[in-house]
Amino acid sequence: MENKSRDIAVVLASGGMDSLVITAIANEDYQLALLHIKYGQRTEKRELKSFNDIADYYKVKKRLIVSIDHLKKIGGSSLTDKSIEIPEGDLTRRCIPSTYVPFRNAHLLCIAVSWAEVISAKKIFIGATEQDSSGYPDCRERFYREFNRLIKEGTKPETDIEVITPLIKLTKGQIVKKGMELNVPFQLSWSCYKDEYLACGRCDSCLLRLKGFKEAGIKDPIKYRL
Amino acid sequence: MENKSRDIAVVLASGGMDSLVITAIANEDYQLALLHIKYGQRTEKRELKSFNDIADYYKVKKRLIVSIDHLKKIGGSSLTDKSIEIPEGDLTRRCIPSTYVPFRNAHLLCIAVSWAEVISAKKIFIGATEQDSSGYPDCRERFYREFNRLIKEGTKPETDIEVITPLIKLTKGQIVKKGMELNVPFQLSWSCYKDEYLACGRCDSCLLRLKGFKEAGIKDPIKYRL
Repeated sequence: MENKSRDIAVVLASGGMDSLVITAIANEDYQLALLHIKYGQRTEKRELKSFNDIADYYKVKKRLIVSIDHLKKIGGSSLTDKSIEIPEGDLTRRCIPSTYVPFRNAHLLCIAVSWAEVISAKKIFIGATEQDSSGYPDCRERFYREFNRLIKEGTKPETDIEVITPLIKLTKGQIVKKGMELNVPFQLSWSCYKDEYLACGRCDSCLLRLKGFKEAGIKDPIKYRL
Repeated sequence: MENKSRDIAVVLASGGMDSLVITAIANEDYQLALLHIKYGQRTEKRELKSFNDIADYYKVKKRLIVSIDHLKKIGGSSLTDKSIEIPEGDLTRRCIPSTYVPFRNAHLLCIAVSWAEVISAKKIFIGATEQDSSGYPDCRERFYREFNRLIKEGTKPETDIEVITPLIKLTKGQIVKKGMELNVPFQLSWSCYKDEYLACGRCDSCLLRLKGFKEAGIKDPIKYRL
């Protein structure tokens, strides 16, 4: 709900389950400003649809959709380079998988900070999780602590913006439970790295999502190929 | 000169005088990888020409030109929004001028870091100056110190990238002198915020450049309107 007297929070909304849950969390206390970034990932059309569906559901007027092509141009990730295959999901893997997009979350946060500074938002919500993650370095709590220091040094003295990571310590099961408490429309979200029609059910992102629903004891309402 | 045995340094090269001087400095010890970012600033065409002229001069093969439109879309700056006039230069001004682009240098550095991680560059050179500057928060030494901490937290464990700011403590006069020592082609660089054919000679950027040449006791080879 829009409420002019509330502070504004920019929410980084990919269209995935985690960003859906943080949208609902931010919606409790802030006026929402939803930011979606297309960076050349394979499923960007499907993610944009989820973003808009979620923004419609929460009746959000402040939306910013940004398209960047430099991460794709720079390459180095199977998420943005179709010549590198998306690896089969493996939640026991110890190395950083090829889906890692170099320094990606820093790019996303920079865009959020610039927008937040212009629209005088006080908070930036991002659905990063350290616990049940693919081990990306830019998903760790320490990274966000540093980023908050950087914002203080790199913005105007009167600017006061803080990055908030409400899910950082939660398991995927706890994230699904949190979403259930807040009645989020899980059916509108999309997580699969690989496909845009039926979720593959096999990439890391699908495996993590399915693990969450299993742990929370409910059925994921989206459809899977397997 | 390209030299395969040298480490690679990514140089953020706007096409301006400061980035020309750091290109020459980096060229002493590193294999150059020149990065130019068009972000919707008024003089982007002229800056790109300078970038390519400078890259040709130093015979650089590794070049990356990235075009981002979100800073323009987000607005909030006279540099990217033509409805806000570029202020007359005033080097005694104490507040942050309207030419400040929110968090701009963080965006530029993120792109440099992602590229550096993919091409295994060890250093990123940026021509920020704290001394003779327009007072932008993201041009201060503290900002770069924080950014280096962020890189450590947000990239792969084996990645080792450091941002270097060789000009941060220099006056514009010292920068011009440094450029003279290294025989840089000043005539190829462009600094004006406002115009693309004859430099206006009146905006902050022109005033700072002219101050540098005056202090160094030589004539700026580019042509001015005034």
